[in-house]
Amino acid sequence: MSATTTTTELERIIAGDARAVARAISKVEDNVEGAAGLMKSLFPHTGRGLIVGVTGSPGAGKSSLVDKLAMLYRSRGERVGIVCVDPSSPFSGGAILGDRIRMQTLGLDAGVFIRSMATRGHLGGLARASVDAVSILDAAGYEKIVVETVGVGQDEVEIVKTADVSVVVLVPGMGDDVQAIKAGIMEIGDVFVINKADREGVLRTEKELEALMSLAARGDGWEPPIVKTVATENVGVEALAAAIESYREFLLKGEANLARRASVARWRILELLRERLVERALGGEGADEQLDALANEVAAKRRDPYSAVEEFLEVSEKQ
Amino acid sequence: MSATTTTTELERIIAGDARAVARAISKVEDNVEGAAGLMKSLFPHTGRGLIVGVTGSPGAGKSSLVDKLAMLYRSRGERVGIVCVDPSSPFSGGAILGDRIRMQTLGLDAGVFIRSMATRGHLGGLARASVDAVSILDAAGYEKIVVETVGVGQDEVEIVKTADVSVVVLVPGMGDDVQAIKAGIMEIGDVFVINKADREGVLRTEKELEALMSLAARGDGWEPPIVKTVATENVGVEALAAAIESYREFLLKGEANLARRASVARWRILELLRERLVERALGGEGADEQLDALANEVAAKRRDPYSAVEEFLEVSEKQ
Repeated sequence: MSATTTTTELERIIAGDARAVARAISKVEDNVEGAAGLMKSLFPHTGRGLIVGVTGSPGAGKSSLVDKLAMLYRSRGERVGIVCVDPSSPFSGGAILGDRIRMQTLGLDAGVFIRSMATRGHLGGLARASVDAVSILDAAGYEKIVVETVGVGQDEVEIVKTADVSVVVLVPGMGDDVQAIKAGIMEIGDVFVINKADREGVLRTEKELEALMSLAARGDGWEPPIVKTVATENVGVEALAAAIESYREFLLKGEANLARRASVARWRILELLRERLVERALGGEGADEQLDALANEVAAKRRDPYSAVEEFLEVSEKQ
Repeated sequence: MSATTTTTELERIIAGDARAVARAISKVEDNVEGAAGLMKSLFPHTGRGLIVGVTGSPGAGKSSLVDKLAMLYRSRGERVGIVCVDPSSPFSGGAILGDRIRMQTLGLDAGVFIRSMATRGHLGGLARASVDAVSILDAAGYEKIVVETVGVGQDEVEIVKTADVSVVVLVPGMGDDVQAIKAGIMEIGDVFVINKADREGVLRTEKELEALMSLAARGDGWEPPIVKTVATENVGVEALAAAIESYREFLLKGEANLARRASVARWRILELLRERLVERALGGEGADEQLDALANEVAAKRRDPYSAVEEFLEVSEKQ
């Protein structure tokens, strides 16, 4: 056990103490010393909760849907953790705003833990930190952990792929860009939701979705169900929970589960490796100053970025 | 000059030969040997074109808007390059689909070059490759280069920030998630567009946007204009081009330009550095097998991801 992970800290997290959980998530988010030690000691306690990833077009009503799903799980006596990945929030405090809105609905319930994860500057690590936060909630005994993305980008797709069950939320009739996104996220959806299903165009969206699915065979024999919901009116939420459960049962029966876990593990190792290597390269004496100097040279067009990186690596290796 | 960059290849790109440009972009996308050498030799020829970044909510009609803007530039006799960043496309060929749709409108015009950039597996590099593609088009003498994102995630925001002028496209009334995104992308917008401005709710969106802007002061004295467009009917496109031009003129007058270029250069160096370090770490003998073995151990819960990375780094350093 790392020197900075006290037995008490670990015990409190495992006992489900919300304040200890919050502090642990801040640790991995800030990537402070001791964060790695903490994650190592928590690891044996993970793997009990069901992790549900939720992504989809902005405006599809993901947050409302997640809130209603959380309430359903609560009514069944389960504790629910929600990790909301918001890559855009560093710019204007979006994460804080999102948390506040959420708190009005769910925040007074001690059985629900909500946390928004934001980008911390240029060094990345949001994906790694988000997945670590999910593990912390898992170790803390939350039976259901929902990881939800605000954006729909590369990192967000990767994060949702680390869940046990990935839910893709669509909405009827949103134009061409959404078509492109639909095509792109087809393969990560274990369950599809058409939210705002009281709107025009539901049938068309459903047909399009079925057509796309018939093109992209999964290879594991699972046929992703399509669930229609109106989250704001709590319509279809039980059906969504049932669809999520049915995929979990499918996973438990077959080989797909281990393959999925291995692929998630590989991704987590690579993300951590990337972060470690960059940290180490930038942690050297004078590295930051050298980087600034090189950036200024590139900006002034006295040097190209490729040569700048070679120069940087040469200097850092001499140390 | 690198051995794999022949004078002829370089000359053909600088002469604006579309096939040479396409091949060069494939090189940086696949990150093959010689790609770095090519980028180095092209660097002195960059910095002439105007790079316009376009992002915004899916369904906002970004593609139509970019197409109409491209047509306007064409009518003024300028050559236009379009780089479309589509992180989701590896899953189901989204990039190819997007290109095909595009081609119907613009593809027959030799003065327009369109390229979609997709993620290449787990190793990332999409952001670096997209920005390299923009540099290639710049070196090839395209007067306007538009870099457009399909998703709205962390990487997409970073890519759009590398442009000379960043345009954020919104659409009236799309719900809460969009509110969150609006807050998040406020600081990257030099010009805002409310597209589909013939729809209900334009005034409300405009008011919200103004309110958000008044909260987030930029510090450089620029007040981002809000342009209303109906891209499908070619309404407001001239006003958008004028707003883009006015920001360019603002940049040329002040200090902001150099600071922006330095920050873009720093980001490019970091992206390249990250990629190089991971490549080197995974390029060692047996590295891939070791990674697979560690991933399997983590999946089987015999080892945690943090210890796996430490083990990996230890082995790779002994070599």
